[in-house]
Amino acid sequence: MKLHGTMQVNSAGHLEIGGCDATELLEEFGSPLYVMDEALIRQNCRNYVGSFRSVYPDSEVIYASKVFSTKAICRLIQEEGMGIDVVSAGELYTALSVKFPVDRIYFHGNNKSAAELEMAVETGVHRIIVDSFHELELLNSIAAKLGKKADILLRLSPGIDAHTHHYIKTGTIDSKFGFCIANGQAMEAIVAAGTYPSLELWGVHCHIGSQIFELESYEEAARTMMTFVRDITVKTGKAVRELNLGGGMGIYYSEEDAPRQIIQYAERVANTVKACAAEYGLALPKIIVEPGRSIVGEAGVTLYTIGAIK
Amino acid sequence: MKLHGTMQVNSAGHLEIGGCDATELLEEFGSPLYVMDEALIRQNCRNYVGSFRSVYPDSEVIYASKVFSTKAICRLIQEEGMGIDVVSAGELYTALSVKFPVDRIYFHGNNKSAAELEMAVETGVHRIIVDSFHELELLNSIAAKLGKKADILLRLSPGIDAHTHHYIKTGTIDSKFGFCIANGQAMEAIVAAGTYPSLELWGVHCHIGSQIFELESYEEAARTMMTFVRDITVKTGKAVRELNLGGGMGIYYSEEDAPRQIIQYAERVANTVKACAAEYGLALPKIIVEPGRSIVGEAGVTLYTIGAIK
Repeated sequence: MKLHGTMQVNSAGHLEIGGCDATELLEEFGSPLYVMDEALIRQNCRNYVGSFRSVYPDSEVIYASKVFSTKAICRLIQEEGMGIDVVSAGELYTALSVKFPVDRIYFHGNNKSAAELEMAVETGVHRIIVDSFHELELLNSIAAKLGKKADILLRLSPGIDAHTHHYIKTGTIDSKFGFCIANGQAMEAIVAAGTYPSLELWGVHCHIGSQIFELESYEEAARTMMTFVRDITVKTGKAVRELNLGGGMGIYYSEEDAPRQIIQYAERVANTVKACAAEYGLALPKIIVEPGRSIVGEAGVTLYTIGAIK
Repeated sequence: MKLHGTMQVNSAGHLEIGGCDATELLEEFGSPLYVMDEALIRQNCRNYVGSFRSVYPDSEVIYASKVFSTKAICRLIQEEGMGIDVVSAGELYTALSVKFPVDRIYFHGNNKSAAELEMAVETGVHRIIVDSFHELELLNSIAAKLGKKADILLRLSPGIDAHTHHYIKTGTIDSKFGFCIANGQAMEAIVAAGTYPSLELWGVHCHIGSQIFELESYEEAARTMMTFVRDITVKTGKAVRELNLGGGMGIYYSEEDAPRQIIQYAERVANTVKACAAEYGLALPKIIVEPGRSIVGEAGVTLYTIGAIK
């Protein structure tokens, strides 16, 4: 077992996490018991926010709460000055229950129900990331009914075949997520979004998958998205103000995994976006990234009690 | 989709289950919605009980509640005159909550906690199926402390390599379940059980796996167990009163699956046990079988609502 964060073996020979003896935790709470290392989570948050601010000031780091959604983590994420993304009414409810600022909440999902979209519009979440033509139509009608304007990004599929397990690849051409750039649907959706009076399009989003270790994949995704940002500007005459590049940085599960430093990731992404903007003569968009697993994964331990040995 | 039980397409062109229009069910309860066909479950229960009684009167059919444990199913199983098996305090609690007769409750599991064993002994469940030497020791001390005698079966691993997915094979020699016959552990456990003053050994149990279609595997298991029953009698001089042969009859998932009739299964098992008893000059033990999936699996449907089509 690799000891992450505050984990260490104490003088009694027991695992200790955040200064708590694991054996004592089990006596108090029973097992199985999930233990999260708050200090490591905060360190990861500060590492992300600090790294991105240092290389690209107009950036926002938002926590993909699908990986671990509780009131405590929502409070912590808020304290660390990050945003949060939710993919269901339940996660939105959890974030709102601790008064998470709505102007830092992003609502994702490729099958949002009408009730969830209503909740999102009514509570005024910062951005709704729209995934299909059906959702554009539905969200516009809901926003109109409520007399509000919905601020949206469009989720695009950039056609990046990242090196990860095919179950967690989400950016390929035939992905079930988003509008595909390669077949023209993405541009069609951009144009369509502009025609809905109750929608305000702020930018585009992509997420190429989870547990990705190659920084080249992120560079490739950033370049593909910036090229498409240029195409949008040419086609519509409007600037793309926000570029959400998703999450997915690989974490340590076994000795085969060699996680990259967050600062390397931030630099590669920032440099690619800046280089493309310069090449294409575009204003720099705000960059948003959505780490989840790489914020909390290595900070979590499950404690068990041995029942019988055979 | 294959229509089982009371399922049919009604005049409105909708799926109907037990006379209920699936669309109306969704309007009332929302989705996803699990719908169980009570008539089909009862038919399966009667088929099992009737088939076994017709070929082997001294038999009991008990429902493996791990597959679907709710108050309603516990009531139904009780009404159909069957027993029930539980593998956790939660399932035992559920059965007891509808006043399921304790003399028809069997407690299984290869990692029962001391608290679960205490609950089982205190409530007086009919049989506890002991899985390891550790559990023999622990259960004896708990029963002694409570001033009761625990009625047990021993779970044995008969070394049958049934034709099913390796994830649900449970009767092989290196299985994590039970005492292995082939390496002598099973006989050691039988002898050990006889030395504990607070345990009463009634018989032996095996379960060779789930989703098994070949009746030959069940025959082979029954023959192996009966041969071992003879060995026990020779070794200890005591009769084995109960032979629990587990469950596992395969059900229909796809066109590749060809479920056998329950009566065929009952006949093959009964004939094997009778033939072995005659050959070895043994009294016929009570036979217990533990269907789970084959009671409720084909009676369950999950209803979804289409969100977006892409």
